[in-house]
Amino acid sequence: MPGANPEERLAQLGIDVSTPASPVANYVPAVRTGNLVFVSGQGPRRPDGSMVTGKVGSAVSLDEAYEAARLCGVNLIAALKSQVGDLGNVRRIVKLLGMVNAEPGFNDHPKVINGCSDLLVDVFGDNGKHARSAVGMGSLPDQISVEIEMIAEVAESTQIPD
Amino acid sequence: MPGANPEERLAQLGIDVSTPASPVANYVPAVRTGNLVFVSGQGPRRPDGSMVTGKVGSAVSLDEAYEAARLCGVNLIAALKSQVGDLGNVRRIVKLLGMVNAEPGFNDHPKVINGCSDLLVDVFGDNGKHARSAVGMGSLPDQISVEIEMIAEVAESTQIPD
Amino acid sequence: MPGANPEERLAQLGIDVSTPASPVANYVPAVRTGNLVFVSGQGPRRPDGSMVTGKVGSAVSLDEAYEAARLCGVNLIAALKSQVGDLGNVRRIVKLLGMVNAEPGFNDHPKVINGCSDLLVDVFGDNGKHARSAVGMGSLPDQISVEIEMIAEVAESTQIPD
Repeated sequence: MPGANPEERLAQLGIDVSTPASPVANYVPAVRTGNLVFVSGQGPRRPDGSMVTGKVGSAVSLDEAYEAARLCGVNLIAALKSQVGDLGNVRRIVKLLGMVNAEPGFNDHPKVINGCSDLLVDVFGDNGKHARSAVGMGSLPDQISVEIEMIAEVAESTQIPD
Repeated sequence: MPGANPEERLAQLGIDVSTPASPVANYVPAVRTGNLVFVSGQGPRRPDGSMVTGKVGSAVSLDEAYEAARLCGVNLIAALKSQVGDLGNVRRIVKLLGMVNAEPGFNDHPKVINGCSDLLVDVFGDNGKHARSAVGMGSLPDQISVEIEMIAEVAESTQIPD
Repeated sequence: MPGANPEERLAQLGIDVSTPASPVANYVPAVRTGNLVFVSGQGPRRPDGSMVTGKVGSAVSLDEAYEAARLCGVNLIAALKSQVGDLGNVRRIVKLLGMVNAEPGFNDHPKVINGCSDLLVDVFGDNGKHARSAVGMGSLPDQISVEIEMIAEVAESTQIPD
């Protein structure tokens, strides 16, 4: 059953979330408050450390942007894992703000951000179903094509790893 | 007294919130975590299902954009109601992120988003007073003129309807 | 130790946070729900009431934008203080959404928003370390260069001042 064990599902998918991105400035990857974890905006970092860049709707196609949003999802899960240890502690993915670096006339932001939403539902099952907005930005850092931030709910007993 | 009974006030205003918009992608209209409900970004969907589209500050006037933001508010209340049943369970509207699909030189985002804020205060009274940001996007899905997301606080005892 | 006493640190820095900005529309500067305070988006208001305006990356330089973000931080702290009284009640700065009114080809949003993040860490110490996103908007109200919204966690016992 997808989502029953998110760690196993990630292994099946061959996705490595052991190394969260280092913040490029004076902030942290995620903060827990009560049972909520607020995860910093994550870009489409590939496993080799490079980023998907370019305006969606011209330099970057819809399919490429979907894959970029999926990469944002991988990095969000990695940042979340750095706060909660075992991803089995995640009770619910609560909310995404999906930000697309799109041409002014672009229409398909929801289809782009599905790259992240589909991954979350694949990995966390019903617990991965979330509220979200999918919108178009004027610009994003270093011309990255997509950036996504996330709120998750974790089990009360979750210990933050050292 | 406005807001004492939000369901009655909506009826007085002739606003139907019985049918939340169906998400156009892999997400849900709202997620409750603890006493907070995070409502997905809602567009300016008219009762007939059509959307207000076009850039604010050129194709769409300030007055039209105010009405578009009010429609976003109607859809936010409908999505919230789908999670909380009776709107009397809403303790507080906490926060809006009001996103205007505006021309780069547009100045009046706050006046646009007032279309939603005024409705919320009209319907929920003092409980409808919220924190917010009102900002300008580079683009929005299908050229909609405004999109707004919301966080609300509900009474502890609120049961999510089946 | 920086942050041990945020009120003292602000005094050392000569920063006055006694006067939060008045909302320019139908909303409030901040809303508390549980132990969280959601602070409305704040612009780069100078002590004399004027605002830093203009597109970052052309009319406004990176250094000027950093200072603008720092001013947003001052206004965020003032709005937070209006809700929590003594800033010693702040347990954690949880999250920023840093929005830069940037040229479409601008790259350095994180360096801009550091103006706010650095101030928060200076004032609140380790409690000031937060999750965040730093992104580029198509436009902002009255052409302000930066707008930032914030979520903070306060001590359970915090009384909202009258």
